[in-house]
Amino acid sequence: MVSRNDIIAAAARIRPYVRHTPLLHLSATELGLGFPVTLKLELLQHTASFKPRGAFNCLLSTDLPAAGVIAASGGNHGMAVAYAARTLGVQAEIFVPTLTPAIKVARIAGYSARVVQVGDTYAEALAASRERQAATGALEVHAYDHADVLAGQGTVGREFELDAPGLTHVLVATGGGGLIGGMAAWYSGSVAVVSVEPEGCPALHDALRAEEPVEARVSGLAADSLGARQVGKLMFPIAQTWVAGAVLVPDEAIAAAQLLIWDRLRLVAEPGGATALAALLSGAFRPPDNARVGVLVCGANTDPAKVART
Amino acid sequence: MVSRNDIIAAAARIRPYVRHTPLLHLSATELGLGFPVTLKLELLQHTASFKPRGAFNCLLSTDLPAAGVIAASGGNHGMAVAYAARTLGVQAEIFVPTLTPAIKVARIAGYSARVVQVGDTYAEALAASRERQAATGALEVHAYDHADVLAGQGTVGREFELDAPGLTHVLVATGGGGLIGGMAAWYSGSVAVVSVEPEGCPALHDALRAEEPVEARVSGLAADSLGARQVGKLMFPIAQTWVAGAVLVPDEAIAAAQLLIWDRLRLVAEPGGATALAALLSGAFRPPDNARVGVLVCGANTDPAKVART
Repeated sequence: MVSRNDIIAAAARIRPYVRHTPLLHLSATELGLGFPVTLKLELLQHTASFKPRGAFNCLLSTDLPAAGVIAASGGNHGMAVAYAARTLGVQAEIFVPTLTPAIKVARIAGYSARVVQVGDTYAEALAASRERQAATGALEVHAYDHADVLAGQGTVGREFELDAPGLTHVLVATGGGGLIGGMAAWYSGSVAVVSVEPEGCPALHDALRAEEPVEARVSGLAADSLGARQVGKLMFPIAQTWVAGAVLVPDEAIAAAQLLIWDRLRLVAEPGGATALAALLSGAFRPPDNARVGVLVCGANTDPAKVART
Repeated sequence: MVSRNDIIAAAARIRPYVRHTPLLHLSATELGLGFPVTLKLELLQHTASFKPRGAFNCLLSTDLPAAGVIAASGGNHGMAVAYAARTLGVQAEIFVPTLTPAIKVARIAGYSARVVQVGDTYAEALAASRERQAATGALEVHAYDHADVLAGQGTVGREFELDAPGLTHVLVATGGGGLIGGMAAWYSGSVAVVSVEPEGCPALHDALRAEEPVEARVSGLAADSLGARQVGKLMFPIAQTWVAGAVLVPDEAIAAAQLLIWDRLRLVAEPGGATALAALLSGAFRPPDNARVGVLVCGANTDPAKVART
């Protein structure tokens, strides 16, 4: 399991390379919820998602081979690995499925990586990347099922606790589970960490019910960022121990949350980035009275014209 | 003149109604400047500009007449007055010129205000609003030349100093001068407050040169938010005493800053909101060695499709 000390070490390691992202405190009336909410604006991270935390922690924890690094990704992890590789002066090859939006493919290439678009889903791109890795000897940076990645993503929890020490509940969107695994490892039960997934991508919800990682459907608005077929083996025992609940939200709630985030906050959140807040707005998760609720807004890689009703 | 005590009183008065906006610390390499920069994300304020601070301070400092409030505005002040009036349960009439973007007109109406679009510039809309005010008896909320408005905008400086106490320079975009007047009154020379205006809207630059408020040209990309014909009479002595410099930037630098703010930070800044940063990026203002520079990003009311190269 990933420990708090692993996360503290990761935070020290990646500090020169990542942003300490700010909070935004919203009063009880602002979103019409009747209780205040503290947002952590992790969408203001480099490459506009939390993913560079895990990518840098991985790349900085090992000797990098001459062949550089290789990763499969729905898009955001690929951007982060490409960005980290460029920053540290090594080559990157990124495999993405056909469902990855054009904006993400272009961004990965913009960070000087070689992009290979292959397969319908993340799982197929991953299989292709592993064939390639066997040929090149590049370092594989898994999008979520890797201890260094979990510890890196866990630094989001550390920052959130440092800056908002009194929270009782933290809502986090879940894809393959690297982020929520790292954050739940950080909080270790001191805060109720709640997983939010789209109805079309219920990998953690289904795994907790089955008591083991199982294959889940992958579809809908947020599939490119939250569409892991199955949660990671490393995160699963953490989730069983420390994730307080796993709720599902429909795509309509995600789209409504994106629009509200633009309308009230003038922030552009991608579907996966708006999913955690959608659980509050839609009532899929109702905190108890006197809860102090934090929500992670974790990604912004989308076309703003699709989000904003100006 | 506006005192620090006036600003402290304003901060207490408006506290339930405005957001304490967050900072974002950027390292020396992130924007290619070679020195770190601390951004205050005032574009995350209600109505997506700093203007509610002055509007609430004005409305909360007096008994409101039955006829409600009236204001002339390039757009952002009108949104703020409409928002404050709706929050406090009074009517608002807002006069805007024809150069006000459709997005801002729609937003003002969206806050339940009556909108009158008249005249080519802010000055003409102001004249029309004053005729109307004489007939209705509504409270006029001037966009900048009002002591309560200056004290309200000064709360931006107070927050910036509280959260980033070590700054040596703060860059602020100037229109009619309410914001920079309030902020310069707060810092009172303890920090070098630098005014940035578009070349097409040089009202403070020209006033400081002439040693009195003079009529200036109003044109270009940011004219709807920074296009005051003349700076306020109340702010001018503050600027003469405490504004450390007044630089001008071309529209191309503003557009480039908007694009960079989207590309690197995934924030949507309107032209006036990107103007202060444009002075650093374009080299129009070069801080001395070892300066610790803060920049206010002050508005986001624009069509993101115009800003973002996805």
